[in-house]
Amino acid sequence: MITDSECIFCKIVAGEIPSTKVYEDDLVLSFMDINPVGRGHLLVIPKNHYPTVFDIPEGDLGAVFATARRIAAALKEVLEMPGLNLIQSNGRAASQIIDHFHLHLIPRWPGDALSKLMDWELKPGDMGEIGDIADRIAGKM
Amino acid sequence: MITDSECIFCKIVAGEIPSTKVYEDDLVLSFMDINPVGRGHLLVIPKNHYPTVFDIPEGDLGAVFATARRIAAALKEVLEMPGLNLIQSNGRAASQIIDHFHLHLIPRWPGDALSKLMDWELKPGDMGEIGDIADRIAGKM
Repeated sequence: MITDSECIFCKIVAGEIPSTKVYEDDLVLSFMDINPVGRGHLLVIPKNHYPTVFDIPEGDLGAVFATARRIAAALKEVLEMPGLNLIQSNGRAASQIIDHFHLHLIPRWPGDALSKLMDWELKPGDMGEIGDIADRIAGKM
Repeated sequence: MITDSECIFCKIVAGEIPSTKVYEDDLVLSFMDINPVGRGHLLVIPKNHYPTVFDIPEGDLGAVFATARRIAAALKEVLEMPGLNLIQSNGRAASQIIDHFHLHLIPRWPGDALSKLMDWELKPGDMGEIGDIADRIAGKM
């Protein structure tokens, strides 16, 4: 197990800090967010400590999202919400607060607290710049 | 191949509508978002048509996120951005516009267009209700 002794989520995995668990297996843990942006807001994390998507191996990442898919179905059955966002943040500039990879599952209802947040304006981009960036990324793949 | 003849993303997969491609293999396609919320905003989709996370099989989902992980590394190498959000929306209530599963990769910089959007207020939830929901979801897993 890869752990960081200063990490709150590693302490939750180790049982040193309590959490409201939803699911657990060898690779992943899911628990409720204690500062929920909405009803049913929960997290899925790898048990191993990886700060971001740039650090997590493919196997742990696959386990997180396979679990998220199953939990999404359970959430829908329980809450019957009309929408669900999966959000994963990397780096302070992307609003990441805890430096242990975590995926937010946020059930959504019309007019809820995230409604104003998630509706970004759709406006066409600069296709020259977009094409240039695409070429440079494709060149790294 | 599972397709929906009315779906814009299926038409992009089929080459009937042009896109700025970043990556393609048997299962997934990645292309630039033409209404970018920021520089380098792109999408990763399964080639098969699944409307939401409630419909996509585990294999296609795994392929999408394994690819997203590789593209994230390429994005970071090319743009050197300090943050990255992965966002996936299901249902109109969650701001989904195109009913073909898609994952947004959105590079982030301090003070950018998403800064005000993603910073939701952290306030403690009702632990009684949170515990109740957790129990009900755990019971479905």
